[in-house]
Amino acid sequence: MPAPLIRHPFMNGPALSECNAAAMVQAMLAFELALAEVQERHGAMPAGTHRAMREPLESHAFDLAAMAEGVASGGNAAIPFVKQGRAALPEPLKRYWHMGATSQDVVDSALMLLLKPRLAALDALLLRCRAAAVELMNTHDQTVMVGRTLMQQALPITFGVKVAHWAIGLEQSRRRLAQVELPVQFGGAVGVHSGWGELGLDFMDGLAGRLELAAPVLPWHTDRQPIHALATALDAVAGAAEKAALDVALLTQTEIGEVSEPGGEGMGASSSMPHKRNPVRCALIRAACRQIHGHATVIMNAAAQPLERGLGEWHAEWSPLVDSALLLEGALEQLARLLEGLEVHAEAMQRNLAITGGAIMAEPVSRLLVPVVGQDAAKRISAEAAETARIERRAYATVLTEHTEITGRIERAELERVADPALYLGSAQRQVRRAIDWLMAS
Amino acid sequence: MPAPLIRHPFMNGPALSECNAAAMVQAMLAFELALAEVQERHGAMPAGTHRAMREPLESHAFDLAAMAEGVASGGNAAIPFVKQGRAALPEPLKRYWHMGATSQDVVDSALMLLLKPRLAALDALLLRCRAAAVELMNTHDQTVMVGRTLMQQALPITFGVKVAHWAIGLEQSRRRLAQVELPVQFGGAVGVHSGWGELGLDFMDGLAGRLELAAPVLPWHTDRQPIHALATALDAVAGAAEKAALDVALLTQTEIGEVSEPGGEGMGASSSMPHKRNPVRCALIRAACRQIHGHATVIMNAAAQPLERGLGEWHAEWSPLVDSALLLEGALEQLARLLEGLEVHAEAMQRNLAITGGAIMAEPVSRLLVPVVGQDAAKRISAEAAETARIERRAYATVLTEHTEITGRIERAELERVADPALYLGSAQRQVRRAIDWLMAS
Amino acid sequence: MPAPLIRHPFMNGPALSECNAAAMVQAMLAFELALAEVQERHGAMPAGTHRAMREPLESHAFDLAAMAEGVASGGNAAIPFVKQGRAALPEPLKRYWHMGATSQDVVDSALMLLLKPRLAALDALLLRCRAAAVELMNTHDQTVMVGRTLMQQALPITFGVKVAHWAIGLEQSRRRLAQVELPVQFGGAVGVHSGWGELGLDFMDGLAGRLELAAPVLPWHTDRQPIHALATALDAVAGAAEKAALDVALLTQTEIGEVSEPGGEGMGASSSMPHKRNPVRCALIRAACRQIHGHATVIMNAAAQPLERGLGEWHAEWSPLVDSALLLEGALEQLARLLEGLEVHAEAMQRNLAITGGAIMAEPVSRLLVPVVGQDAAKRISAEAAETARIERRAYATVLTEHTEITGRIERAELERVADPALYLGSAQRQVRRAIDWLMAS
Amino acid sequence: MPAPLIRHPFMNGPALSECNAAAMVQAMLAFELALAEVQERHGAMPAGTHRAMREPLESHAFDLAAMAEGVASGGNAAIPFVKQGRAALPEPLKRYWHMGATSQDVVDSALMLLLKPRLAALDALLLRCRAAAVELMNTHDQTVMVGRTLMQQALPITFGVKVAHWAIGLEQSRRRLAQVELPVQFGGAVGVHSGWGELGLDFMDGLAGRLELAAPVLPWHTDRQPIHALATALDAVAGAAEKAALDVALLTQTEIGEVSEPGGEGMGASSSMPHKRNPVRCALIRAACRQIHGHATVIMNAAAQPLERGLGEWHAEWSPLVDSALLLEGALEQLARLLEGLEVHAEAMQRNLAITGGAIMAEPVSRLLVPVVGQDAAKRISAEAAETARIERRAYATVLTEHTEITGRIERAELERVADPALYLGSAQRQVRRAIDWLMAS
Repeated sequence: MPAPLIRHPFMNGPALSECNAAAMVQAMLAFELALAEVQERHGAMPAGTHRAMREPLESHAFDLAAMAEGVASGGNAAIPFVKQGRAALPEPLKRYWHMGATSQDVVDSALMLLLKPRLAALDALLLRCRAAAVELMNTHDQTVMVGRTLMQQALPITFGVKVAHWAIGLEQSRRRLAQVELPVQFGGAVGVHSGWGELGLDFMDGLAGRLELAAPVLPWHTDRQPIHALATALDAVAGAAEKAALDVALLTQTEIGEVSEPGGEGMGASSSMPHKRNPVRCALIRAACRQIHGHATVIMNAAAQPLERGLGEWHAEWSPLVDSALLLEGALEQLARLLEGLEVHAEAMQRNLAITGGAIMAEPVSRLLVPVVGQDAAKRISAEAAETARIERRAYATVLTEHTEITGRIERAELERVADPALYLGSAQRQVRRAIDWLMAS
Repeated sequence: MPAPLIRHPFMNGPALSECNAAAMVQAMLAFELALAEVQERHGAMPAGTHRAMREPLESHAFDLAAMAEGVASGGNAAIPFVKQGRAALPEPLKRYWHMGATSQDVVDSALMLLLKPRLAALDALLLRCRAAAVELMNTHDQTVMVGRTLMQQALPITFGVKVAHWAIGLEQSRRRLAQVELPVQFGGAVGVHSGWGELGLDFMDGLAGRLELAAPVLPWHTDRQPIHALATALDAVAGAAEKAALDVALLTQTEIGEVSEPGGEGMGASSSMPHKRNPVRCALIRAACRQIHGHATVIMNAAAQPLERGLGEWHAEWSPLVDSALLLEGALEQLARLLEGLEVHAEAMQRNLAITGGAIMAEPVSRLLVPVVGQDAAKRISAEAAETARIERRAYATVLTEHTEITGRIERAELERVADPALYLGSAQRQVRRAIDWLMAS
Repeated sequence: MPAPLIRHPFMNGPALSECNAAAMVQAMLAFELALAEVQERHGAMPAGTHRAMREPLESHAFDLAAMAEGVASGGNAAIPFVKQGRAALPEPLKRYWHMGATSQDVVDSALMLLLKPRLAALDALLLRCRAAAVELMNTHDQTVMVGRTLMQQALPITFGVKVAHWAIGLEQSRRRLAQVELPVQFGGAVGVHSGWGELGLDFMDGLAGRLELAAPVLPWHTDRQPIHALATALDAVAGAAEKAALDVALLTQTEIGEVSEPGGEGMGASSSMPHKRNPVRCALIRAACRQIHGHATVIMNAAAQPLERGLGEWHAEWSPLVDSALLLEGALEQLARLLEGLEVHAEAMQRNLAITGGAIMAEPVSRLLVPVVGQDAAKRISAEAAETARIERRAYATVLTEHTEITGRIERAELERVADPALYLGSAQRQVRRAIDWLMAS
Repeated sequence: MPAPLIRHPFMNGPALSECNAAAMVQAMLAFELALAEVQERHGAMPAGTHRAMREPLESHAFDLAAMAEGVASGGNAAIPFVKQGRAALPEPLKRYWHMGATSQDVVDSALMLLLKPRLAALDALLLRCRAAAVELMNTHDQTVMVGRTLMQQALPITFGVKVAHWAIGLEQSRRRLAQVELPVQFGGAVGVHSGWGELGLDFMDGLAGRLELAAPVLPWHTDRQPIHALATALDAVAGAAEKAALDVALLTQTEIGEVSEPGGEGMGASSSMPHKRNPVRCALIRAACRQIHGHATVIMNAAAQPLERGLGEWHAEWSPLVDSALLLEGALEQLARLLEGLEVHAEAMQRNLAITGGAIMAEPVSRLLVPVVGQDAAKRISAEAAETARIERRAYATVLTEHTEITGRIERAELERVADPALYLGSAQRQVRRAIDWLMAS
């Protein structure tokens, strides 16, 4: 698979290497050692056993190639791992290895251990995005731009409030993700701790504590709610990130040019078309997020697993889950840099506010004219003046002032006030303040 | 569309009729009247206005056919609704109608109002399922059956613990759904309450209170986190329901026969094959849930919406969202009846426990034999005896007792104890108690 | 379900009413009558029987409400339909009714019959789109505009070639859809024509002929390749339609304004913002197509159905399949009108070609300068001149001619030629001719 | 990413290594060299140029690590590849490198080149599956088993006909995949061969011939029909494979036991539960196919790409497309082995046919009794006898013969004939012959 050329570029490099096959082996080992420790604590093996096991295992060089082959014939990574681990132990300790555990206990728990630092990294990136967004919100609280609905110019907003809307989406998804629990898995062959009686649940709870994972109510071999909650929470973040990237991409269009992606590092430069600065970060974010949606689809369709163990449904979860986390980390890293270095072109925003000649302000202007000239004339005049202003590239208020039906009947200052986008911003500024209060509340 | 024959059967009938086009119109009207009321309270219209508006509108017969046509040309239901509403008002009141609102404010809020009773109904159905599950758990706490992994017989469990696992999944999804907020939408043309200044946010908060919807931090025209959270929470419930239906379907197989769907109402009878009792409820549940997964996919892929208004992405959400809720209500109604009337065949569970002749108990038996005959012989004898027991249809313990290498060396009672599935249930019973405690904790 | 307000607007009205529950009943009846006719022809019932059955059934008023209820308990529409049909027959004919058929035979065949005219309608709409596209291609074969990659201005193309690319996509998907076969379904209870021996296959083939559906190799109760092929072919058309709508939506942006949706019928007008003309057709198309993608997901995930009958997987196909066809018909109707009435603003295309001051032509200009001033200077001068041209709003060639390092060294005419987007169109025109040849070849 | 432990096991090992990053680089190089060759042939560069370019490039060691980094900043693999390639050429040849091409030309064409041998491998695997299926069909043409609808025993079929239904599905999908064209991509910066005039299309056609890819009508940068057709055809094969795996998994259930996965290689063995033989191949197949469905979802949702280049939509296709092909190859390799080595337990099929005591034959028996005892009695007696036969474990025909209301009234031989599942197989055998004819017809 040409992953380094077609998948890894969407991922965060360090994350990718922290979360590799060797790390998965270490996570499986951490599970087994913690299990022995907990079992020893409960008297299920002689004192000192788990410590005796630890040394040969921690220094053992697991054979990853053999393990990969073993997965294909056994069906999961725990089978060859457990075999190799047992072989690495001196004879008398072998019987204490993987005691009472089933493959799914090892794999599910190891995946949770692998994902835990990834969720922490995602949270940190989302906080970076939040900080960058708040700075943009503060800086551009008064930066007027046009709001666009169905991609048509509608009425004025501020760039600050636009960023506030992105930030709210990102933060909602961050809080949702932060609430997702990563539970340990431990149930034994059929989920009831066969052969260990009630102690099985104590082992499970002990493992959770030892591995710093959540303790589930019961083993969850075929209750995939934890995976569903995680995968859809990752997808929610992807949706929020994709929204910001979509807006940035639209605003960087040559004809609009209200923002630019941060330059540097050669990103987005085109050798053959030097005038271009491609929104490459937006493209990477959007590409990653779309793949995350596909992965979430797999997990939703695999939520119902038969009886006491999935028959492919479980196996189908692994890659989509880990890929989702890694793609999202890649996307958020791009988004953080994008927000931190975003170039905002207030003058282009001003220019674009003017290109309809004032038509976007026709509504408030018309309301001002009604008492003076009547409803129909008000509508006609406000539209005519906008057209004139657009063609002659003059200010809307000036054209209105000079309009024969208006001259002398309404104060120029009044007209200027009403036709000024910067004075028709509704709750934009209060929204920014409210958003900041909420964003910073946790 | 032949919906009554191909879609509605998966839905709950009363829900379907409570949540129809007329109800949508009433929800839009409720939004507009609440808006007027809140605006009047804030002095934005003369005292008494909203009351004056209410009477002609509440008695007005909205033209649904015209409205449906209007949707196709305007793009959403609010446009023709607002037009009809304005026409129904006496001239002096027209200007107070839909004041400061945009179509998306009306439609999003109306959908939230439509969905609110549906979420309540879903919660009630999930509580019915929970109660039925707890009863099954109590009744079958000691009903031994075989656990199956990859659909192969593995080791014993109880039917009670199996139901506990279903119940945990359903309850996790219920609690997740219960936390989803249905926020009011109110932002005006571009989401900043143009023309109303800071008051806009007060209108928004007031509307939330008046309509008993959640107050969002900011308007969420293109921040679709609330929709994503809702759609994926509905999907989580679908996953949990589908899991129970899948298990029931597998356990009703003719050769397994451990449970039957409740009879009555002619469900599942086949006129041409009188011996069949088809798991029709399971089929309906699974069909509904699979459609919900598809709907969730649409919503995840539409989470990123451009600038200040979706260009199709928003419109794409409506049907999937409402269909998901209605399909889920249909599925849960079937599931509630299924759990309430499930026929559990303990004798078939016993029969199936025996069909491997004891091989499922070979592991504990082997462990008992090791100290007496050594590791290799133990493995061989436990397997041989299982094969003999299976062929001769005799009890595993008896065959073991009579085995030449065992006779006289191990107590028959001891062999019976170790070979008895009912004494090898691990934490099954404690799991049931723990599950009930957790289920009932909220 | 408020379908008339949230789903039907995305559908074609007449299609929606031609494809309703009554039509489904008629399709099921057509299947049963054709079956009797074929069976009579093969001597399986006395001569004249099928004619005798036809009259009471064709005049029978089937009770749709009862049928809808029957679906929910029996699991599919055929069960109550067959029951009502049998009741409508005189006693001696009852035994010849639904002979050798199973519910899935009736429902699958009826759905194929329902969909057949829809596919014909889709083909007709795609031909309308093709004709409109070819007209646009011919008209705008020389209409120069800028090509945009990653939404950034890149190099010139023509509007004609852009439409050619849309048309190729649409026509590829049309040809794919046209090749999809709608097979009759007939296999009896378990797909082997139990009780009818080899004759069963003759009945199947005869039915195909009589109903003008394709004859499958074998019954396809749980071989869902025909459904998969159909659903994904519908989705392919959706993708092609969505592409055109996306481009139109982007080109209608206020700042770009190169095309407008056809006016009239009040589509896209905004009462409160008179300057707006919303791309409502694009929004409807995109919304419909996104829902189709979700439906295809359901069908792909339901392709594997267990043993001799789906347990929910089959049931899950019905709505997504029919909805996909109806949504697509709605989308294509909008697209046909959009292409037929599209307003193309060549002057805006000219204006946009100029907004970089010529930078989009820097590449060919630079190539011209290299032999005269060397590589580095060529690059610098071409960029500087573009910047000057942009700021001073003068022609790129003029600025270049006046550049101190160029004046007198290159002919003005030569510079004008090289800087002229209209002379840098590559194979655009040949592409249009080639596309038309291919489009019209079938 | 722990791909070797969680993704690669679902893939075919040799395929995985043939289709790696180095192979992608070679494919990109093959594109560029073919382009030079074609351009030289058209006189666009001096004779001998492409040969001069070939040597330094073919012997150049491309730096994969640098390339991977370059992808993340440039957005696709072609950018760093082209840069490295240019650097590897002597100065005078640099200008002939990548002439008239854009990144997407290189990447799309390289992916097609990478996928071409994979499609050939898939076809070969499908032919292996077909051969194995035909052998099973021939061998088990008379192997009677029960057909199951909604997983309930219904009426008899043969194992041969069941396999025929799998084979038809697989072969339909094989033929569909075989028709998918892999077109070369070549359009230059904006898809119109800027700077090359009409010659561009000749280059494109020449490239197709040289690389043995299909020649598209036009460049297809944002017309993704070829990708959609490919991805959904791969998904269709996945659906057909998944269906066979689902059936096998259901038939291997301990209580049913009608088939077993081939043993050997330790597949499916459980160390702790020696009686188990897990359907591991089925699990791997199902897991792979479910992931393919998710990938297809991504591609369907990315079919509409903006203007002249996707902004993330294109980038989102790469991994899902290649992963789909590799996952499918892994799944089909498992399926081929599964079908080639499938153990069929005819005696278990016989046993299962008997477990309802004959109730599955109640329909034909009842039909025999009607003329003798009347309709109601016939139904009652056939059911009673089945119940007796089931409880007493005796033959249905014997019990019927001894029934007081039947004894002496119907010939025992007649009863035996009618109650014999092996004589109630409908068109099963003709279906097998017909299927083989059709399968072998191409």
